[in-house]
Amino acid sequence: MLSEFQFLENLRRKYNLKKTGDDCAVLPKDSRHDLVITTDLLVEDIDFRLDWSKPEFIGHKALAVSLSDVAAMGAKPVWSMVSIGVPERVWKTDFVERFYEGYTKLAEKYNVELVGGDVSRTPDKIVIDSIAAGEVRRGKAILRSDAKVGDLIFVTGNLGGAALALKLLENGESFELSKQKKLLLRQLAPNPQTEIGQILGEKNLATAMIDLSDGLSSDLAHICRASKVGAKLFTDKIPVESKIFDFTFETDQISSALNGGEDFELLFTLSPKKKFQLEKELQNHQISPIGEVSANVEIIELIFDEKIHILEPEGFRHF
Amino acid sequence: MLSEFQFLENLRRKYNLKKTGDDCAVLPKDSRHDLVITTDLLVEDIDFRLDWSKPEFIGHKALAVSLSDVAAMGAKPVWSMVSIGVPERVWKTDFVERFYEGYTKLAEKYNVELVGGDVSRTPDKIVIDSIAAGEVRRGKAILRSDAKVGDLIFVTGNLGGAALALKLLENGESFELSKQKKLLLRQLAPNPQTEIGQILGEKNLATAMIDLSDGLSSDLAHICRASKVGAKLFTDKIPVESKIFDFTFETDQISSALNGGEDFELLFTLSPKKKFQLEKELQNHQISPIGEVSANVEIIELIFDEKIHILEPEGFRHF
Repeated sequence: MLSEFQFLENLRRKYNLKKTGDDCAVLPKDSRHDLVITTDLLVEDIDFRLDWSKPEFIGHKALAVSLSDVAAMGAKPVWSMVSIGVPERVWKTDFVERFYEGYTKLAEKYNVELVGGDVSRTPDKIVIDSIAAGEVRRGKAILRSDAKVGDLIFVTGNLGGAALALKLLENGESFELSKQKKLLLRQLAPNPQTEIGQILGEKNLATAMIDLSDGLSSDLAHICRASKVGAKLFTDKIPVESKIFDFTFETDQISSALNGGEDFELLFTLSPKKKFQLEKELQNHQISPIGEVSANVEIIELIFDEKIHILEPEGFRHF
Repeated sequence: MLSEFQFLENLRRKYNLKKTGDDCAVLPKDSRHDLVITTDLLVEDIDFRLDWSKPEFIGHKALAVSLSDVAAMGAKPVWSMVSIGVPERVWKTDFVERFYEGYTKLAEKYNVELVGGDVSRTPDKIVIDSIAAGEVRRGKAILRSDAKVGDLIFVTGNLGGAALALKLLENGESFELSKQKKLLLRQLAPNPQTEIGQILGEKNLATAMIDLSDGLSSDLAHICRASKVGAKLFTDKIPVESKIFDFTFETDQISSALNGGEDFELLFTLSPKKKFQLEKELQNHQISPIGEVSANVEIIELIFDEKIHILEPEGFRHF
C-alpha cells in the first residue's frame, strides 16, 4: 500500500496541483503581465491551534502563507480572497472579527486588495481557505525548474525559528506569558518575504525559487527535482536562528535549520555572474549564500567538517 | 444580540465578501476583458453528506456551484482551482480520486482548466474550497445592481427540484435504489447554467443577474436591494418542477419553488425592448418571464389569484 505522502504526491502530480509544480499557478493576464495565483487550506488543530495563538495571528498567517507563495514566484501581490468556516462555539466569540483584523492589517501593509470570499458554518473545526494573486512581467515568473549547474544557492533570513517556536508551544509555552514573544511570532504570525521576492522578480535575478514551508532540505529537493540538478550545501554558511543555541533540548542546531518547516523565507538560485548585482539590490536585506547547484541530479550533498554527507529530506510532511 | 444571519451579513458587508456584493469579484484583466472570480467553501455534513451522495457527485457539485457564480456574471469560465482537506478515515478510501473524476468531468465539459489547488489533512470532516474564474468583456460583467424599473424578470429552468430532492434524501431515499434518480441529481449534482450565462453576457441582454442558490425569494431580494428597486412576481408564471406535484407531503408547490434553495438556475432582469432578441438567442433553452421590476424599493409583491401578497424572503440561510 502507498504511504499517505506518496498517495498525495501522486494526486498532486496527476491533477497538476501545487507542491509538485510551483508555488503558484501562472496564467496569462495581458500582453505585458502574467497573473500568479495560489490557494492554501488551513484547518484548526492541523495548521493552527486556538489555545496557542490569537485570532489576529491566525488571520495574519492565513494571508502570509499565500503571500509567501506569491513572493516565491518573484511577483507583486495584488489581490486576495479568504473564505472561513466556523463552528457554533466559535461563532459566539469575537474570533471572526479579530481574524479579519489580523488579515486586513497584513493586506494593507502590502497594498493587497481583499476582493471577496465567504463566511460559512462548519460542524466542528475552523477552516480557512486563503487565496492570493500577484502580477509578474509576462514569462518572468520565477519557477522551480530553471536552476542551472554552477548557480549559487541563497536563502533569506534565519532558519529554524518557526520550528523552535513550535517546540516551545508544544512544551506549554504561553504567548501571553512568554519572554520569547518575537521567536513565537515566527511560528504564529510569520512574515512573507514580499519585498525580496518582488526585487528578485523585477530585476531578473533568480533562476529558480521556492518559499521555505516544508523545510530547507525538502524545499531544496523540490527545486532539484524540478530543475533536474543536484546541490551542495555548506553547513557553516546556513544562517541558523540564534535563539536555537539558547535551548538545550535542541541538540542539533543544523538539523533544526535544515528540517524545520514554516520559516517562510525564500530559497533561490542565481547565476554567479549576478552575485554583485544581487548584493547591491538586496543590501538592506539579509541574504546568505549557502551552496551551489551541482550536476548530481536530485542528490543534495552537505559539506560539514570538510566531509561530504548525503542529505535525506526530512522536512515537514503535510501528511 | 444579533442573529447569526445578521452577524454574517454585517461581516460580509464590512469586508466586501460575496453574497452582499455579487456572485463573483470583478477584476481588470487586460484592455478588453475583466476577470471574474469566486470561491465557495463546502463542508461535510453542512453542504453535503457522504451517505446521501457519491464522491463523483461531490466533485461535480464543488465545481458546479462556482461555475454557477461565474455564469451569473455573464462570463465564460476559463480556469479553476480546488483544495480538498480529508480526514484519515476518508484517506483510506478511493474518495479523493473519485472526487477528482467528477470534478474533472464537469471541467472538461465546459473547457475549464484546473490550474492548481492542494490536498491536505483535516482532523474530522471533509472540507473543499472551490475557486473558479471566468472572462467577460471589460465593464460588461452583469451585476446585481443594475435592474431598472419596468424591466422584465426571467428565470431559467424549473424551480424547487433541488429542495424536493433534499426532502426525499432527508426522508431516507437512497440514490442507488431510487426511481427518482434524475430528480435527486438536481440536489446531488446540479448543472450550472454556463451556456445561458455566457449568451446573456455576450449579447448584452440582462441588466442584472444572480444564480439561485438561496432560493427565488431571497435571491430576488438581493437584486432588489442592490438595484434599489422592488419586484412583482406572477405566481402562475413561476416554472415549478413537475415532480413536486407527485409528492403529497409537499402541500404548497409554489412556496417550494419560491423558497427552495440550490436550484442553481439563473434569475435575471431585461429591458422590455430586448424581449424579442432574448427569445431568439435563447430559443433552445427554457426561460420563463415571471414578473417585472417595480419602483417599490425592496418590496416583492406576489400576484396570486388576482390578489397581491407581500413576499417575505424565506430561502435557505447559510446560518
